[in-house]
Amino acid sequence: MHEECGVFALYGDGKIENPAEYAYLAMFAMQHRGQQSSGIAVSNDGVIDCIKGMGLASEVFDDEKLSKLGGQNVMAHVNYSAKDANVLSAQPIVMRYGKGRLCVANNGSLVNAKELRNLLAQNGAMFRSNSDAELIAQIIAKERMFSHSIEEAVRITCENIKGAYSMVVMSPNKIVAVRDPHGFRPLALGKTAEGCYVVVSETCALNAIGADFVRDIEPGEILVIDGNGANTYYKHGGCKKSICIFEYIYFARPDSVMDGVSIHAARDRAGRLLARQHPVEADIVIGVPDSGLDAAIGYSRESGIEFGMGFVRNNYIGRTFIKPTQEQRASSVSIKLNVLAENIKGKRVVMVDDSIVRGTTCADIIRLLKNAGAKEVHVRISSPTIHYTCPYGTDIPTREELTSNKHSVQELCELIGADSLGFLSKDSLGEIIGVCDKCYCDACFTGDYPVE
Amino acid sequence: MHEECGVFALYGDGKIENPAEYAYLAMFAMQHRGQQSSGIAVSNDGVIDCIKGMGLASEVFDDEKLSKLGGQNVMAHVNYSAKDANVLSAQPIVMRYGKGRLCVANNGSLVNAKELRNLLAQNGAMFRSNSDAELIAQIIAKERMFSHSIEEAVRITCENIKGAYSMVVMSPNKIVAVRDPHGFRPLALGKTAEGCYVVVSETCALNAIGADFVRDIEPGEILVIDGNGANTYYKHGGCKKSICIFEYIYFARPDSVMDGVSIHAARDRAGRLLARQHPVEADIVIGVPDSGLDAAIGYSRESGIEFGMGFVRNNYIGRTFIKPTQEQRASSVSIKLNVLAENIKGKRVVMVDDSIVRGTTCADIIRLLKNAGAKEVHVRISSPTIHYTCPYGTDIPTREELTSNKHSVQELCELIGADSLGFLSKDSLGEIIGVCDKCYCDACFTGDYPVE
Amino acid sequence: MHEECGVFALYGDGKIENPAEYAYLAMFAMQHRGQQSSGIAVSNDGVIDCIKGMGLASEVFDDEKLSKLGGQNVMAHVNYSAKDANVLSAQPIVMRYGKGRLCVANNGSLVNAKELRNLLAQNGAMFRSNSDAELIAQIIAKERMFSHSIEEAVRITCENIKGAYSMVVMSPNKIVAVRDPHGFRPLALGKTAEGCYVVVSETCALNAIGADFVRDIEPGEILVIDGNGANTYYKHGGCKKSICIFEYIYFARPDSVMDGVSIHAARDRAGRLLARQHPVEADIVIGVPDSGLDAAIGYSRESGIEFGMGFVRNNYIGRTFIKPTQEQRASSVSIKLNVLAENIKGKRVVMVDDSIVRGTTCADIIRLLKNAGAKEVHVRISSPTIHYTCPYGTDIPTREELTSNKHSVQELCELIGADSLGFLSKDSLGEIIGVCDKCYCDACFTGDYPVE
Amino acid sequence: MHEECGVFALYGDGKIENPAEYAYLAMFAMQHRGQQSSGIAVSNDGVIDCIKGMGLASEVFDDEKLSKLGGQNVMAHVNYSAKDANVLSAQPIVMRYGKGRLCVANNGSLVNAKELRNLLAQNGAMFRSNSDAELIAQIIAKERMFSHSIEEAVRITCENIKGAYSMVVMSPNKIVAVRDPHGFRPLALGKTAEGCYVVVSETCALNAIGADFVRDIEPGEILVIDGNGANTYYKHGGCKKSICIFEYIYFARPDSVMDGVSIHAARDRAGRLLARQHPVEADIVIGVPDSGLDAAIGYSRESGIEFGMGFVRNNYIGRTFIKPTQEQRASSVSIKLNVLAENIKGKRVVMVDDSIVRGTTCADIIRLLKNAGAKEVHVRISSPTIHYTCPYGTDIPTREELTSNKHSVQELCELIGADSLGFLSKDSLGEIIGVCDKCYCDACFTGDYPVE
Repeated sequence: MHEECGVFALYGDGKIENPAEYAYLAMFAMQHRGQQSSGIAVSNDGVIDCIKGMGLASEVFDDEKLSKLGGQNVMAHVNYSAKDANVLSAQPIVMRYGKGRLCVANNGSLVNAKELRNLLAQNGAMFRSNSDAELIAQIIAKERMFSHSIEEAVRITCENIKGAYSMVVMSPNKIVAVRDPHGFRPLALGKTAEGCYVVVSETCALNAIGADFVRDIEPGEILVIDGNGANTYYKHGGCKKSICIFEYIYFARPDSVMDGVSIHAARDRAGRLLARQHPVEADIVIGVPDSGLDAAIGYSRESGIEFGMGFVRNNYIGRTFIKPTQEQRASSVSIKLNVLAENIKGKRVVMVDDSIVRGTTCADIIRLLKNAGAKEVHVRISSPTIHYTCPYGTDIPTREELTSNKHSVQELCELIGADSLGFLSKDSLGEIIGVCDKCYCDACFTGDYPVE
Repeated sequence: MHEECGVFALYGDGKIENPAEYAYLAMFAMQHRGQQSSGIAVSNDGVIDCIKGMGLASEVFDDEKLSKLGGQNVMAHVNYSAKDANVLSAQPIVMRYGKGRLCVANNGSLVNAKELRNLLAQNGAMFRSNSDAELIAQIIAKERMFSHSIEEAVRITCENIKGAYSMVVMSPNKIVAVRDPHGFRPLALGKTAEGCYVVVSETCALNAIGADFVRDIEPGEILVIDGNGANTYYKHGGCKKSICIFEYIYFARPDSVMDGVSIHAARDRAGRLLARQHPVEADIVIGVPDSGLDAAIGYSRESGIEFGMGFVRNNYIGRTFIKPTQEQRASSVSIKLNVLAENIKGKRVVMVDDSIVRGTTCADIIRLLKNAGAKEVHVRISSPTIHYTCPYGTDIPTREELTSNKHSVQELCELIGADSLGFLSKDSLGEIIGVCDKCYCDACFTGDYPVE
Repeated sequence: MHEECGVFALYGDGKIENPAEYAYLAMFAMQHRGQQSSGIAVSNDGVIDCIKGMGLASEVFDDEKLSKLGGQNVMAHVNYSAKDANVLSAQPIVMRYGKGRLCVANNGSLVNAKELRNLLAQNGAMFRSNSDAELIAQIIAKERMFSHSIEEAVRITCENIKGAYSMVVMSPNKIVAVRDPHGFRPLALGKTAEGCYVVVSETCALNAIGADFVRDIEPGEILVIDGNGANTYYKHGGCKKSICIFEYIYFARPDSVMDGVSIHAARDRAGRLLARQHPVEADIVIGVPDSGLDAAIGYSRESGIEFGMGFVRNNYIGRTFIKPTQEQRASSVSIKLNVLAENIKGKRVVMVDDSIVRGTTCADIIRLLKNAGAKEVHVRISSPTIHYTCPYGTDIPTREELTSNKHSVQELCELIGADSLGFLSKDSLGEIIGVCDKCYCDACFTGDYPVE
Repeated sequence: MHEECGVFALYGDGKIENPAEYAYLAMFAMQHRGQQSSGIAVSNDGVIDCIKGMGLASEVFDDEKLSKLGGQNVMAHVNYSAKDANVLSAQPIVMRYGKGRLCVANNGSLVNAKELRNLLAQNGAMFRSNSDAELIAQIIAKERMFSHSIEEAVRITCENIKGAYSMVVMSPNKIVAVRDPHGFRPLALGKTAEGCYVVVSETCALNAIGADFVRDIEPGEILVIDGNGANTYYKHGGCKKSICIFEYIYFARPDSVMDGVSIHAARDRAGRLLARQHPVEADIVIGVPDSGLDAAIGYSRESGIEFGMGFVRNNYIGRTFIKPTQEQRASSVSIKLNVLAENIKGKRVVMVDDSIVRGTTCADIIRLLKNAGAKEVHVRISSPTIHYTCPYGTDIPTREELTSNKHSVQELCELIGADSLGFLSKDSLGEIIGVCDKCYCDACFTGDYPVE
């Protein structure tokens, strides 16, 4: 499963010497949200320019490019795109239109993109990629022709687009940050040491540039940052907040805080709940690196079973790593992870992971543990079984490929070779983010889609 | 601090289709021991060839190069060289001499290299690099001219070289594995699924290729692998075993086992000992990733203070990452690590790390914790204070640069901004590898050099 | 001076296994027309896809990319862009619009681009680059919404765009080739050995793929290639043909034939005319490589003065060549060219070159000749003095930078250190392409612009 | 056929700020002598260092590496190696021995290399490559241990090595240039504008750095350059001069002068002789680029048949160019060369080339000419038929592969599809360099080897 993107914007207003360096650090901190392409756009005395390319921020940018960008205000984007992986759909998208240039970077996915694209195309619109961001940029630009301000154009655009969007829009002299009315994806406001406002997908990017967290952008909020500070221009109401629960379970970095809830704390609670829902007698609790570690600690604390390191992860896998072709015991998993046999041998092991999608990786890991001498392997998954795809920007395989649509939990347990298998119950999802009220989207588990 | 190298050898004898693939996987598993250059040599129907280059194994090799290598027997090397970073000193070293070719790869550092080099040079020897491996290869080749076998030449060579060497030597039809009489560096024997013997610096490389651990090569042992299996040719006695204690504390991967002692278990014990030697009232124990984590868990278990994740490490730092030039809060450390504030805020923290060399990194990390709201930071170091340099292959700064030679523990504690600071006592080093008898080298802490 | 582009299209219709390979060879043959970016688009069972990138065809494409492209019909483009050097303006441009996708590649420059862009933008059009090709693709797509066929849309587009355009348009099942009514830039039709029609900017690309020349696309002609062969759809009349005379003088490869006139023959004639217009007593005639050689041979033949090699050109200058920074005798010119002193020493030399723009290169070359011992250097330029910029796709410096706007021929002769200097007369331009009637554009010499 | 190497040395003595820049320009000028590897070594206050790598000078070096080299004296090498293409055999070779470091770069090939290597190896010498330069460096270093000076060591070395060597040797404070007693390969002395002595394989490298030609190093001469200027230390006599005639026919750049003879003039004379030996009625004389052009002009002048351009050569072939796999008319030759049909069609053509090795390329070219409409193609080769391999540094295929060992001239004429075929007679080789006396090596034609 993949997340689709991280956004960043900074209204430097001339107070920061090279704002692109902040963008670079922020992209680096949010690179886990997208590794396919990276881009930075700047507003340079009102002229918007952009450098982007395929790959990690560290691959696309070097000293020369960063310093060449210059500018006062800046925005950036890291992308994972399931639809359209080429540089024409890399973001930020700079659009040249009747009133000049504007720039858009988005995290999320529209549910009415095709419909809008067709409608616009019938009226003469043209597209050079299949990206939502290009579509949104066109709508904003179109509306801007008849609007008094960029923020008004953004507001009208928001009335037409449906689905998930946490985006930043840069005009020559303003930055507008928007979060869709359901707030599917996170978006937060911060302030740098120089006193400049900054918008980020995840708060870990604030830490990366030494900025303070101010507040979350609220679902439905349109925030304008300009010479007058950061002010709410509009707030779309009436929708139920539906932040993606998978951000807490898997996507986000544990050191980020979303809508007031620490990711790490949410995972710790998921682990504790799992321990209550699926207790087992065992000798050690281990987590599958990196995302299973937090929940494993929670499971350990709740159950009283000792937490330990179960695996060592190899940090030297890069883009150019070739998987030897020869048929041998080394699976993909065993190249990345090695069992820390000392902690496993002869023990009854509780192994905590975040999700099971196709089931093959989990089976491989269990086999590694058994080969290393584990007496029993009890798998605990810190999310419910996945049954539905996501139209809001998470790349989930087809329903046919999801193992939970083909097998009962009991069958799956046998298939993957576990001694027991337990998933977090759907009902307890609210507890992991500490709310009773359902203010999150769990459609991939329940099929209960907030926006059709 | 840096380790200098990992070695690998496999006597495939035609049973393994492309033995270079095993070498590649093994290098990848031992890449933490050296990232400057990577090389593979093969014996191809008795002809020894070699491909090597600067960089990680994944950067030097691709499918084409691996399959082009062919061969039946293979050896490989990953290198960190403080002395001489160019491709002429990259290993394996292939030497052409009066009886054909031989090939050497070494982990370690000789103490009489300069003396030997001068002696040989006075007698007409010539060198194209400053590497010990080239020197050793020359001596072996020289002795091989008057010896009955490659193993005899190796034996005579071992009588002349002093210091640390865990090496593999490949002749057209044999592989010889040698560990110096003190056994400063590790070296282990394994067996692949195909029944072929393999020699590795660390056992985690055995796991990477699905091989079984057979036994450690013993200090002073010369092991010959050929058509008759793996047999001890000679065993040099009389020395006290002195395996580098820093392999346990810092260099090796926690999933490796050296001379019967699990690295993870050793670190766990170091953590436990620390807890006994430097107890403190606190709310959470955290480790500095990655090497401080194991000891932190040990400290937690012994002290009963809860273990938790204190940091999130960024996995996207690569070779091309540029550190923004601009003066800002972001230090080197803060680019790699972010504090998981949720776990730290308002708490009394025990932070476990493996060593303090110059003190600056530690001070940076403590500042990050305090900024994130830590009430107290108690630093516990799972090794004694470092006072001496290492002539056996560990790259330690000069005595003048070592902070423990400039400051008392109390002064250092204040300098780095810790609330308390405790080092593991020198006397308890034996305990971490579970021996009473001193069978390890602790010269960097004590100045007590096993070989002058 | 730079040319702006070469185009290629092939209607393979399934008869050619990998048509992208033909595109690659054709780009390579026309690479002299543009080295900034290279791209290939294919129609694959009606789906149009494109791979493009910055650099030479040999840098952008490899075996894998070529074979991945597949497809039945194909078009390609090599680009030099003075305006906008990034991948968003690289061609071919693929446009997604209300009726699917279409693809455009153009050689030339519109004179009403800004006006059209503004007009369209006021009506809601948006652009992602500043390229004419994107603009043209938008107009075609817009018209295609209300037209019966792609060729009709192209025809209507041609009624609105003004200036130079020799372009190919690919719809899912057709290829349309168009040349503007003045025929500023060349465009030719060929047929491959497999019987497939192919369109090229220069006939040397036909040779490169073993195709036969069929005929030139005529000025104002819209040619449709589909299952029914290659048929003229429309012919715009009423304009005087105005092919760029600089194609003959400098841009094109000597082995190409344009509108029935061999480039080499045209240059040979220019040399002969020069000999008649500016005779001189001399010992040898030399040409400045590569474009001055053909005219030099013509001068030699007409004057009876012996032709010889005056220079040796270094073929190893690549993209990464660094010009040493140190101040020394080595100018840019002397790195690329060395005088063949044997032929020059003590001689009266006629040096033929194609044009003088700023004058500095010419002065450097003359100095090299004098240093090598030339007794006299008589410069003969196979074109008239340049006074005006070009709006049709040739990148000429500003009028202020053109040396002929600052100096008389006599002054210039002294400035560059020549013993005599002669330019081809404006009046004889027709003769070099063998016409009495003025059917070419000489605006850069005369300011007489065919289209304002 | 390939040449094996070009050498360069400059005794800058602190008068030249960055002497490595001169080396870079010189390598670039001599890159036609070797494209496999490039290297520069410097003596930096007596410490010799070296940077080298695979590829062209422009690929191996950048601004940073050049300026990092520093130093006062410098030497450089471009290499083509048939034997051993890896960085260990790239030159210059830096050797560390009992008295410090020395550095060697050589052009040529020893005939007793194997014998010497074995002899040395039996006495304990070791080699890391198969290169003659490493062997020579070892012998010099060995002799230097018991000699009063580097030049004496070089002199003794020269008494032992046999074959072709034009080499430069750098000690911390001297440069020694040596040419073997037969003078197989060229070597010339020059002087820079700063008054510093420089040694080059070809005089075109002197032009590249703005240096003046002083004189050729004589066969058998050992020249020492140090604070006392450039002085002959020793002159080995008694051998007949045997400069490689192929340097004149093919290898060298036409703008170089070797042993007083201009390469261009020699080729011109070869063309004239051909015209006398193999006259024919024809309409045009063309040369195969680039090396056939000079002789073609000579043929034209002697025969009175008009010279013309027969081909256009594509300058954009680079290292990464992929030859399309598809079977088609496009042969390797047709990718590089296109016939200038205008000059060929309906004509009787004399095509001049420098040599025929396997015959396939020649046949391809003739086919291109016939396809372009040539009525007759008369092939004239500016060298005799090749029958023997070369032990002095020219990479000629085996005797079995040489077409002249398999076919008579008449058979060959038919095989390649020519209308007539004429080779330069063996007897007239002296005339092309203007001597009656045989002072050149023609062993590849005659089997008459100056050194066995």
